[in-house]
Amino acid sequence: MSIRKFVTPEIIFGQGALSQIGESAARSGASKVFVVTDQGLIDAGWVDKALYYLRNAGLQYEIFSSITSNPKDLEVTEGVAHYLRSGCDALVAVGGGSPADTAKAIATLATNGGELQDYEGVNKIRHPLPPMVIVPSTAGTGSEVSQFAIIVDHQRRLKMSIISKSLIPDIAIIDPDLLNTKSARLAAATGMDALSHAIESYVSLAATPLTDIHALNAIRLIFANLKQSVFDRQDAVANNNMAMASLNAGIAFSNAILGAGHAMTHQIDGLLDTHHGETNATLLPHIMQFNLPVCRDKFNAIARQIDEAASQAGPKQDLAEKAIEAVSTLTKEIGLHNRLASVGLKKENIKTLSQNALNDACLVTNPRDATAEDIEKLFLKAY
Amino acid sequence: MSIRKFVTPEIIFGQGALSQIGESAARSGASKVFVVTDQGLIDAGWVDKALYYLRNAGLQYEIFSSITSNPKDLEVTEGVAHYLRSGCDALVAVGGGSPADTAKAIATLATNGGELQDYEGVNKIRHPLPPMVIVPSTAGTGSEVSQFAIIVDHQRRLKMSIISKSLIPDIAIIDPDLLNTKSARLAAATGMDALSHAIESYVSLAATPLTDIHALNAIRLIFANLKQSVFDRQDAVANNNMAMASLNAGIAFSNAILGAGHAMTHQIDGLLDTHHGETNATLLPHIMQFNLPVCRDKFNAIARQIDEAASQAGPKQDLAEKAIEAVSTLTKEIGLHNRLASVGLKKENIKTLSQNALNDACLVTNPRDATAEDIEKLFLKAY
Ligand SMILES: [Fe+2]
Ligand SMILES: [Fe+2]
Repeated sequence: MSIRKFVTPEIIFGQGALSQIGESAARSGASKVFVVTDQGLIDAGWVDKALYYLRNAGLQYEIFSSITSNPKDLEVTEGVAHYLRSGCDALVAVGGGSPADTAKAIATLATNGGELQDYEGVNKIRHPLPPMVIVPSTAGTGSEVSQFAIIVDHQRRLKMSIISKSLIPDIAIIDPDLLNTKSARLAAATGMDALSHAIESYVSLAATPLTDIHALNAIRLIFANLKQSVFDRQDAVANNNMAMASLNAGIAFSNAILGAGHAMTHQIDGLLDTHHGETNATLLPHIMQFNLPVCRDKFNAIARQIDEAASQAGPKQDLAEKAIEAVSTLTKEIGLHNRLASVGLKKENIKTLSQNALNDACLVTNPRDATAEDIEKLFLKAY
Repeated sequence: MSIRKFVTPEIIFGQGALSQIGESAARSGASKVFVVTDQGLIDAGWVDKALYYLRNAGLQYEIFSSITSNPKDLEVTEGVAHYLRSGCDALVAVGGGSPADTAKAIATLATNGGELQDYEGVNKIRHPLPPMVIVPSTAGTGSEVSQFAIIVDHQRRLKMSIISKSLIPDIAIIDPDLLNTKSARLAAATGMDALSHAIESYVSLAATPLTDIHALNAIRLIFANLKQSVFDRQDAVANNNMAMASLNAGIAFSNAILGAGHAMTHQIDGLLDTHHGETNATLLPHIMQFNLPVCRDKFNAIARQIDEAASQAGPKQDLAEKAIEAVSTLTKEIGLHNRLASVGLKKENIKTLSQNALNDACLVTNPRDATAEDIEKLFLKAY
């Protein structure tokens, strides 16, 4: 075991935890908070609730909601200008991965200056960020606990991975009630994003005994609850468990990083503006097949999380292939596409995407070395 | 699921992680560090190593090592005076639970004033503490990640539990190499302390899905490695695994608190100055027997961590009693006493100790309500 770090924010969780947002922001040192969110959250009434709690804690606020899915560098630039003229001294994100990552990117530029491109890669952020509190509204991105911010570079049409301990918020508030107002399709896509976080971080070269237990727990919870959470959006138990799964997967990948699946998905996200989780789901079984020769034992451990029967299988039974099958089956059962062609990718783009994927920070920790040619083959298999 | 918090410090772990102590202290804002340690650590050469890394990071330091096991309020008073006149602005503890808890208590009084007794109980600390980095030298206390400091009140002859998020250090550095220089007896006692942390926090009323996975992982690692770590003090794999077990148990109990076992052990610690871990081990099976009626399912889950065979048992097999047996057996196998009489307790003290245990903060989260009479009976059973 080499020397490794493990970091999480303070985590507050449970139904109704949104009520802690005011006290949490105040405790982190805020007096006026910049609320980063999107129109969906406003329409669902969650932002009004959040503002009520912020006011109760004696805080002023300003709202920034000009955000699209797969947040763009231009939106961040606009957000930073807004933040700096608002007189805010802290950020609160309420929403899915887009508001969370946008808030992180705004915070980075607010105290570090320059352009987002300056911070692409690992540990490039020098100055501390303003206090941040993140409240996720989907069970998938894990951004609320992670040291990642993923932002689209609109000129290069790819996603930049910015990875730094400074991007971990002060406090993550996980309230499963926020999941109720999301569509089944979004629940399915974000759930598969969480599964890909758990699986990629579990087999990552930077995995540790501490990240492993969170990753395996996430995998178990997702196989046991994602379908039910997609089919009945009001099922509180399934939603609680998916929120917990996403949180665990987030803790795992924040500390163990990801793999080829995310390195490749980030390229498609940047090009097509499709759902990150669905693209991940489409690629995941193929990435697993590629990695299988170097992590059969870990795939066996993954397979034992699928259901009661698998967990009872004798220690000598080889279930590694079963893990891959189970991921494919789950993707189909929750109604997601399983071909990149259906997601909208054009074949002629694959060569460039494969080349770009080589530069993504997530590729470094993939358990099996992948060349541009390997990646191209994987894109084609999933096409 | 009610609203819960989960907090850990930044954790750095792995063989050789002690080398990170200088950089960690500097990063936490230290310029001159107060090194709290004991003579055993100095004699074993670990303090010299730590000082080397502190110097390398450009830090000044002052050493405080007038500490006994079961640290006393008087030692803390002396330490605070020393800290305040030293011009230090941060604390580093290198050692077992005693240096760690003493450092926390010194830090508390340094910025909050008054007496330790003012902070007994939960969340009494008002002002932020100076930066702290803790490097444990035993696999047991979990103090390096916990919000607990346990200090003997020499007048009342009992242990005070001080519980506050402020007591979580900034950085915990877990280097399993430090375990090599401890005696087999200490390894056995601290290992059973870790097991009691894992079991008591797992069945605690404040347990959550997040603490549960750390508690169960600790239990699994202890059953698989404690014996080997006691029998061969140089076994790097067993030591690594015990360090990881203690860390996981610490994360679990810091967030889920403990139970009747610790509430009772603290009283004996305060009276007799015996080893906390050995007293815990002696009491644990009796506490488990008392709690069994209200947590049979959780005891079943504990039993499934004992060995491969138990983990393969069918879901309908009731193994709850097996968990209690396994704890008793392990205590005997590693050569610890299993009667309070052998630890040196006098029967006539039991009434007072039982009364005092009612005031210990750890009793509140015990899964089954216990009266003074219940506690007296438990002391007598273990006598
Ligand atoms: Fe993702
Ligand atoms: Fe203990």
